[in-house]
Amino acid sequence: MTGDDGREAAGSRRTLEQEERWARVAWSFLAEPRSGPLTRLLEESGAVDSLARLRAGHLRQREGWEARLPDLRVDDLAHATRRQKLKVLVPGDDGWPAGLDRLEHPPYCLYVRGARSLADVVERSVAVVGSRAATEYGMRVAADFADGLVSRGWTVVSGAAYGIDAAAHRAALAGNGATVAVLACGADRAYPSSHRGLLDEIAAGGAVVSEVPPGCAPFRSRFLARNRLIAALTRATIVVEASVRSGSLTTAREARTLHLPVGAVPGPVTSMGSAGCHALVRETGAVLVTDAAEVAELAGRIGEDLVPDRPVPPRSPADDLDPLSYSVWSAVPVRGGAPSERLAVTAGVPVARLLGVLAALEADGLVVREAGTWRKVSPRRGELER
Amino acid sequence: MTGDDGREAAGSRRTLEQEERWARVAWSFLAEPRSGPLTRLLEESGAVDSLARLRAGHLRQREGWEARLPDLRVDDLAHATRRQKLKVLVPGDDGWPAGLDRLEHPPYCLYVRGARSLADVVERSVAVVGSRAATEYGMRVAADFADGLVSRGWTVVSGAAYGIDAAAHRAALAGNGATVAVLACGADRAYPSSHRGLLDEIAAGGAVVSEVPPGCAPFRSRFLARNRLIAALTRATIVVEASVRSGSLTTAREARTLHLPVGAVPGPVTSMGSAGCHALVRETGAVLVTDAAEVAELAGRIGEDLVPDRPVPPRSPADDLDPLSYSVWSAVPVRGGAPSERLAVTAGVPVARLLGVLAALEADGLVVREAGTWRKVSPRRGELER
Repeated sequence: MTGDDGREAAGSRRTLEQEERWARVAWSFLAEPRSGPLTRLLEESGAVDSLARLRAGHLRQREGWEARLPDLRVDDLAHATRRQKLKVLVPGDDGWPAGLDRLEHPPYCLYVRGARSLADVVERSVAVVGSRAATEYGMRVAADFADGLVSRGWTVVSGAAYGIDAAAHRAALAGNGATVAVLACGADRAYPSSHRGLLDEIAAGGAVVSEVPPGCAPFRSRFLARNRLIAALTRATIVVEASVRSGSLTTAREARTLHLPVGAVPGPVTSMGSAGCHALVRETGAVLVTDAAEVAELAGRIGEDLVPDRPVPPRSPADDLDPLSYSVWSAVPVRGGAPSERLAVTAGVPVARLLGVLAALEADGLVVREAGTWRKVSPRRGELER
Repeated sequence: MTGDDGREAAGSRRTLEQEERWARVAWSFLAEPRSGPLTRLLEESGAVDSLARLRAGHLRQREGWEARLPDLRVDDLAHATRRQKLKVLVPGDDGWPAGLDRLEHPPYCLYVRGARSLADVVERSVAVVGSRAATEYGMRVAADFADGLVSRGWTVVSGAAYGIDAAAHRAALAGNGATVAVLACGADRAYPSSHRGLLDEIAAGGAVVSEVPPGCAPFRSRFLARNRLIAALTRATIVVEASVRSGSLTTAREARTLHLPVGAVPGPVTSMGSAGCHALVRETGAVLVTDAAEVAELAGRIGEDLVPDRPVPPRSPADDLDPLSYSVWSAVPVRGGAPSERLAVTAGVPVARLLGVLAALEADGLVVREAGTWRKVSPRRGELER
């Protein structure tokens, strides 16, 4: 970092490579995410030893890791992370989110843009994901959910894509909440590029995260790998809108694999944009969710985030009547009034019993007596409609 | 039927009352539907004996049945049913639908308008119900479902109300299918009155059914009673659109009580009209259904009415690649072309292995070689979007 002295740079490289942290950074450059052989190798031998063996040609695996070896400059990577103000996290770091350790193939390391501890930011978080080609309905619901989640103290995690992802991030920011974007490219890059400003805002109060080194481009396989991080970082994954081919369904699948709850937002059956959500509910047991309270309940701990009793439309007082009183009440006309003899026939109740029931209904304010006839007190809104 | 001779009428009355069928008709006049005491009485003593005991003042029950006795004219009821071309069905009749016997409180008898055997018409039927205050979306879905059901040979049963019910009946008729309306008033009446023509059409090819005698008005308690008949007559109940206070939810509850499948159609979470359907899925385990094929599967017998494999959007050929081939394919640019050395670095695969993979991809038509460089064959529609 102090100049162009080749020997110093070489010395720096050796020193860094001898640290487990920077050896993991090296591996994130050499190998694509989700390599089973590398995951085993790092577990068994650690990153420093494995890297030394790779350099010495002693690794039996034929994974093509050596193809990128000539281009590996750990000191350049270290320089780039510092220049881009990226933190490097490795397993065991304070900021390393525990959820990542549940993955079959955890990231070799993470690159994080943002000042806060990533583990803290995602401690109580929900993934809100969905189609890039979202409808206005989907965008509105994503925003409503994100707003409701941050107002309940939840962090919103998503992928910073067009459509649902962006709507969720933006609403979280608008609600002064924390939000985290997990990228398929380097955490220094903006993908899509028009989301540069959005990503800056996300980093300011939350985090922008990636498992590939700064400068890396987003491949399709990296999008799929990225989706498992979104699932693993959060307590539940909510798919707001998704066609049956939407990549957000892979995020749901990853959550399911991790035994984390998956929620899906229904929409019109006439909209292809909701077909993936409906398939999640029908075929995978995803929970149908209709608002942020239900999401919080799904993601929350039992007894902690239960949906509050929601306002129910006003009930008719008649809802609580016993069957006899109900029959009598039903027989009383709304207009015109009817004498008790007629009501006895209509309701099928003897006059002697009828009068007692009518008196009780009158006391409840459900019927009134006028000039020897009975009529209902005008019906209320919100009655059962049939 | 032959004149005003009082003695002949009295004789006719006695004769009819001494038949179990007409004694049940008498009971349907004297008692409201769903009377537990009457259900037990009919089971234990039959309708004729019970009626004789009521007339003799020997019944202990204080249900108010005697209040309507002075108005009971069985011969008038018989005359009215004939004049209105109503069939009377009682348990044991050929046309009596077996599903009704599963009810805790079966109807005392049924009044049916329509030439066909009711049991035949509902043998393979689905209830399609929902809000009167339906949205255009709900009306469209009800029509789509009913059309798809009758085209598969299912009868559509509903309640002839405004909104979802009417849309379902009308689409069934338009598809030349059978449809059955179950009314809360007498089967001779039109409720709502503007549905007179619709009910005539329904009766012509299917049936209009009620458990209350001709001429009777629809009370609210009779609507609720009617809903249990809709559930019991069919193999599944589908709620297309329902607010959380919709009466159609009681039809779903009756179906659940009978251990019959319940389906609910999702809609926008922003629509109060779908909130009842979403609550059915969330809270009662109703199956989310999005089209008629799924309804037929829900209502059908295992192995008979399975949803056919639905057309899936075209997959990318790349979907089926092994991970190594996939990495290589991902690394190949769409435009410009790249030499194999560069691809080896990008994909992280040794050149020696890379060339074999590229040759296989070329054979699959996924990449092409041009002037020593490789590029992707232009990507297809329908690819995973992220």
